[in-house]
Amino acid sequence: MTPKYPADSLTVLTDLVLPSETNPLNNLFGGELLARMDRAASIAARRHSRRIVVTASVNHVAFNRSIPLGSVVTIEAKVSRAFTSSMEIYLDVWIEDRESGIRTKANEAIYTFVAVDEMGNPVPVPPLEPQTEEEQARFAAALRRKQLSLVLAGKMKANDATELKALFTEN
Amino acid sequence: MTPKYPADSLTVLTDLVLPSETNPLNNLFGGELLARMDRAASIAARRHSRRIVVTASVNHVAFNRSIPLGSVVTIEAKVSRAFTSSMEIYLDVWIEDRESGIRTKANEAIYTFVAVDEMGNPVPVPPLEPQTEEEQARFAAALRRKQLSLVLAGKMKANDATELKALFTEN
Amino acid sequence: MTPKYPADSLTVLTDLVLPSETNPLNNLFGGELLARMDRAASIAARRHSRRIVVTASVNHVAFNRSIPLGSVVTIEAKVSRAFTSSMEIYLDVWIEDRESGIRTKANEAIYTFVAVDEMGNPVPVPPLEPQTEEEQARFAAALRRKQLSLVLAGKMKANDATELKALFTEN
Amino acid sequence: MTPKYPADSLTVLTDLVLPSETNPLNNLFGGELLARMDRAASIAARRHSRRIVVTASVNHVAFNRSIPLGSVVTIEAKVSRAFTSSMEIYLDVWIEDRESGIRTKANEAIYTFVAVDEMGNPVPVPPLEPQTEEEQARFAAALRRKQLSLVLAGKMKANDATELKALFTEN
Amino acid sequence: MTPKYPADSLTVLTDLVLPSETNPLNNLFGGELLARMDRAASIAARRHSRRIVVTASVNHVAFNRSIPLGSVVTIEAKVSRAFTSSMEIYLDVWIEDRESGIRTKANEAIYTFVAVDEMGNPVPVPPLEPQTEEEQARFAAALRRKQLSLVLAGKMKANDATELKALFTEN
Amino acid sequence: MTPKYPADSLTVLTDLVLPSETNPLNNLFGGELLARMDRAASIAARRHSRRIVVTASVNHVAFNRSIPLGSVVTIEAKVSRAFTSSMEIYLDVWIEDRESGIRTKANEAIYTFVAVDEMGNPVPVPPLEPQTEEEQARFAAALRRKQLSLVLAGKMKANDATELKALFTEN
Repeated sequence: MTPKYPADSLTVLTDLVLPSETNPLNNLFGGELLARMDRAASIAARRHSRRIVVTASVNHVAFNRSIPLGSVVTIEAKVSRAFTSSMEIYLDVWIEDRESGIRTKANEAIYTFVAVDEMGNPVPVPPLEPQTEEEQARFAAALRRKQLSLVLAGKMKANDATELKALFTEN
Repeated sequence: MTPKYPADSLTVLTDLVLPSETNPLNNLFGGELLARMDRAASIAARRHSRRIVVTASVNHVAFNRSIPLGSVVTIEAKVSRAFTSSMEIYLDVWIEDRESGIRTKANEAIYTFVAVDEMGNPVPVPPLEPQTEEEQARFAAALRRKQLSLVLAGKMKANDATELKALFTEN
Repeated sequence: MTPKYPADSLTVLTDLVLPSETNPLNNLFGGELLARMDRAASIAARRHSRRIVVTASVNHVAFNRSIPLGSVVTIEAKVSRAFTSSMEIYLDVWIEDRESGIRTKANEAIYTFVAVDEMGNPVPVPPLEPQTEEEQARFAAALRRKQLSLVLAGKMKANDATELKALFTEN
Repeated sequence: MTPKYPADSLTVLTDLVLPSETNPLNNLFGGELLARMDRAASIAARRHSRRIVVTASVNHVAFNRSIPLGSVVTIEAKVSRAFTSSMEIYLDVWIEDRESGIRTKANEAIYTFVAVDEMGNPVPVPPLEPQTEEEQARFAAALRRKQLSLVLAGKMKANDATELKALFTEN
Repeated sequence: MTPKYPADSLTVLTDLVLPSETNPLNNLFGGELLARMDRAASIAARRHSRRIVVTASVNHVAFNRSIPLGSVVTIEAKVSRAFTSSMEIYLDVWIEDRESGIRTKANEAIYTFVAVDEMGNPVPVPPLEPQTEEEQARFAAALRRKQLSLVLAGKMKANDATELKALFTEN
Repeated sequence: MTPKYPADSLTVLTDLVLPSETNPLNNLFGGELLARMDRAASIAARRHSRRIVVTASVNHVAFNRSIPLGSVVTIEAKVSRAFTSSMEIYLDVWIEDRESGIRTKANEAIYTFVAVDEMGNPVPVPPLEPQTEEEQARFAAALRRKQLSLVLAGKMKANDATELKALFTEN
């Protein structure tokens, strides 16, 4: 399969924070942001694989900044690494000040999707070729995240997670 | 502050999977499940702290089983460990076969919430006292997850994450 | 068919009151509560019958207490009596004060569901065996309610509604 | 206060049944219809009283006919009797065949609303003067329903519910 | 095909403005009003044609008056002219003051729908016979609007749009 | 005020067509697309003006292509001309084939927004400087559309609409 670039799957979802989506402090509900990111990530995974895709997992997501009612929120999703039939999607979330126009990073998130056929069985996806420096860093880190995920699920021994182990033993 | 038990915050959200919440394979959208879990977890955090609570982070969530249209989904959320002003919430998600009545574990998830005052500033929460064996195991693992989260965010050195390091060096 | 207990169909739906569900006084819309109760009752009816179920009627529902924005609302639904192919579902609705944690009864409601096959034709359901004192009282009252419903619909003569008539003539 | 006629509060809500509002048999969810009727009834109550109104109770509602996906549903709501600060609203629900254009009665429902001030306290509403024969019949029956509601709530003795008692003793 | 009157397709959709449908000034979102008008217009088109109908275009819509949260909004839709398989629908939107009961015109809009068969192919619709003076005026103007639409789409030469041209050259 | 470029207000909203947004032919409802375009256009208007903005009008919108369930829809909105306090927004809507990845133009639309202060009064906006050829063509056409809108609203005589008149008299 011909490799693809992260730019091929870039998906931008810019939308408002509406009153029905806010918590008692008038900020965007965490759950609503998780749902929007899932939709954006699924489109990126679909653009990379051109197949039906289903959410396989959500990596650690930190909500560093609250997002007030009426904000303009931009979600940018790109495939960061492709495995046999799964794809890691990296998302950057920005909010924009109406008066100054300044964009601030609200948070980052990482979702994993699997490409499937009409019966729901996994199918292979093209490899990913990172280009920018940031894309290369995220590509490398994706392997560590996959190992961590396998270790936490009891599907890989900590000892075999060579990339990950290095983090804790290198000194 | 008087400690509380996990049972004090137990929150059960049983609901149907409606047609507007499904993907092209007629299964529940990952994003919709993430949003429901966020609402259930926020109620558990509120029951433990009796304060306004906001989502701080979502730990790794794996979607092991697809949840078809028309399913009855039960989400059970309980506080698994309390830190100074944050609480880890452990969620178990079950689906139920209509004909046999058999419940199957669909997935687990872990959210972290912070208790805040009316201005959004963190406030202390009561400690948690785990009771059942499962509650004690989740309580212990919560510390490793907190260290992992700090290491991944660059706020703790891997070397100082003693609980976590043991996983990779013990043998 | 083996009888079932009310506890077998107990369904708990705990959720928040969101801004999109409130009226001009910032309380939960009656219509929204009716819809949530319908979903919870349908799950209870399904758990009792293990069949597809459809709403047949809603008995008198009184909204005694308004439910403010941001409340945690808990709906508990249980089958209170089973007839040939219909089931009466009794619902208790509670709201919970965030600061004190005290639960207050907001209202009660009674729905009737019918079990049907894939073509929409009625099918028999298991009998119900009430256990607690409250369950027995509700079981007995269900017959009076069924008679009242038949009398009001002109399908039974007032004179034949023996259980009901007693209410007005015993003295 | 000047009396009003039922026609003054007539409210018509014609809308489609959308896919997100249907149950597994592809018919309109009972809960969704209850919510639409609540909105229509609240507008009728507001037109009669010109005050803020809140749902007080829902009388017996029978779902005689299922309403399939894609149907055009027309809800007609009119005040059927006014008491001190409460109003009974009578609703007729029609569905319309797309090809023949024939309208069929799907069901009827009765809601009660209370007029309140900005603080939520009850305020008086104008009396109702029924005009057509049907309006007069519904006006008369409303008193029996009010008595029944008070008896069932334990706020009136069955013996004092003169209108209602007649139903069971007249022979 | 037997002609129909505009009154045959009259569709009334009266509903509330809910909090989830408002912009930062607490008025109804333009987009939400456009969606409600589309549903009302589609029902009017369906009542005229008794076929499946799809939105073909939306003519110029001016939002002259903002519609505040809690308003009662009434949309009245009627077919204003029928062409081979398309229908122009004219919509009048009213808001109603709760205290005085006075209705004010909020805006007007014109949608065009096409009647189609189950495969999505256009099918003929009955002609329209306008009756009131207003209906006749709108019927006449509909032809100018159709010509304008064709000219703007480059499907008719400005010179052949005789009805339209008269507007600019008559003097 | 410093002029701005169309690129400064470019807003991209990529999202899925969900089951709750489709008509009986399983295509996106016209009304839902109108609502999404309104949100995207309002963000573009806000980026140009950095003020609160409200929908003033929607120009002719043609729905040339139906958009099936499950499609990825991309809306691109850019300011095409700024007047004193109003802005014309030009929208291009694309759908994307999942298997081939080919993007097809689904339709175009033009909305007008007005910038207002916190009280809802109009405020001036920066002028627009078109750059690409397409932007210049749309900028020029915007004046004709404004004149047409004024003529149709009876606020300008056809004779004074010099840009527009030329369309019909030049030859």
